[in-house]
Amino acid sequence: MPKPGRLFGLGVGPGDPELITLKALRLLQAAPVVAYHAAKGKKGNALAIVERYLDEKQLLVPLIYPVTTEILPAHMNYDAIVSDFYGEITGLLRTHLDAGTDVAVIAEGDPFFYGSFMYIHDRLAEDYETEVVPGVCSILGGAAVLGAPLVYRNQTLTVLSGVLSAQDLKTRLAATEAAAIMKLGKNLAKVRGVIDDLGLLDRALYVERATMEAQRIIPLAEVDPESSPYFSLILVPGEKWAGSAG
Amino acid sequence: MPKPGRLFGLGVGPGDPELITLKALRLLQAAPVVAYHAAKGKKGNALAIVERYLDEKQLLVPLIYPVTTEILPAHMNYDAIVSDFYGEITGLLRTHLDAGTDVAVIAEGDPFFYGSFMYIHDRLAEDYETEVVPGVCSILGGAAVLGAPLVYRNQTLTVLSGVLSAQDLKTRLAATEAAAIMKLGKNLAKVRGVIDDLGLLDRALYVERATMEAQRIIPLAEVDPESSPYFSLILVPGEKWAGSAG
Repeated sequence: MPKPGRLFGLGVGPGDPELITLKALRLLQAAPVVAYHAAKGKKGNALAIVERYLDEKQLLVPLIYPVTTEILPAHMNYDAIVSDFYGEITGLLRTHLDAGTDVAVIAEGDPFFYGSFMYIHDRLAEDYETEVVPGVCSILGGAAVLGAPLVYRNQTLTVLSGVLSAQDLKTRLAATEAAAIMKLGKNLAKVRGVIDDLGLLDRALYVERATMEAQRIIPLAEVDPESSPYFSLILVPGEKWAGSAG
Repeated sequence: MPKPGRLFGLGVGPGDPELITLKALRLLQAAPVVAYHAAKGKKGNALAIVERYLDEKQLLVPLIYPVTTEILPAHMNYDAIVSDFYGEITGLLRTHLDAGTDVAVIAEGDPFFYGSFMYIHDRLAEDYETEVVPGVCSILGGAAVLGAPLVYRNQTLTVLSGVLSAQDLKTRLAATEAAAIMKLGKNLAKVRGVIDDLGLLDRALYVERATMEAQRIIPLAEVDPESSPYFSLILVPGEKWAGSAG
């Protein structure tokens, strides 16, 4: 039996390939096996970000999501399908690790911040030497391109999923000084309605695909809810500290 | 009049010099003037992180905090002192920018995430071409070294300052699925008490100076509140998704 390989979870940042860290790049380029998540028939954002850094000698292992939405026909059980999927792909990664080969799983943004890598980690980290390299998350990528300082001094920042109910979003948004709302897409109209109800529409900022080539910044009020992509983001920056003005 | 210089706010990551992004490193090394925050008589964390990347031809401009705590003797007004300080240092940076020289201000973690750069940005971004490069924040650096996936699926993450009152911390912690608490130091005993009251002591994780050479991971229950540094962090990761287990 060879010494088992090591598992790496590498954050590759929010989209701009230059926003990868030196450490993630070094470990990525040293990995004989690079696994990446993607929807069926798509390249996947993480691979698109790092493609230029890869070598043809590296083995690419696609991990193709069986479903891409949590809303499924009645006869399909999301939890069971996804649990089976992670069972299957971690089985595949185990064959490489057991053969003594290091495996790098790349993650858009940060691996531990709403990342699919978390489910791989939870199944493999006890059995193999594992290292996680943090990355720049989409929220901070978004704040940077929006020129929007996010949280001052002792303000609270709340990170919310657009999947939450309108009531839940309203309660949580009303109780915080600054917020970031992810997973928009089809949830855009609902989320925007809540922001409007709370009188926050003037403070809220919207960006699609922050730091990527296809990045788009438009006023939230003008976003077409039918065409907002999943990788869009709303930020409600904390109010500026009065002493901050000239 | 020369064309004014550009202002860069560069996130240099949580501590490990290898956790800087390629972009921040490129812009850092191209900057003729590099400004950094530090306490009096100290080097400052951001400078310590990037020192190895600098060249002797670059001009280093220290921005020395006039105070390092918000709790001051009665005759001193924190807001006025800090506002004066930012007025003074942005005046200094303006002289470089007006002379046509690019200025990079380095920020530990991310510039827009509780960063001192935010106050500089608020005073200068309208007058000079400004670019912010996001960085890996301390929270994600902490989660990585703790091996702790932070937020699953549609969980809410709340980022709190340890400066908040016990009651405020309690209300906000009780209303979230995952949390990160920053600015500990002298607030450690209070914060730990709240976590204990909420029955979260078993789930909470503690790390000092995550990703730095002096990093220290100890169980929260064993931390000496007299010696917890300001740059320590408590994470309460979201509960693992049941489907995540093998």
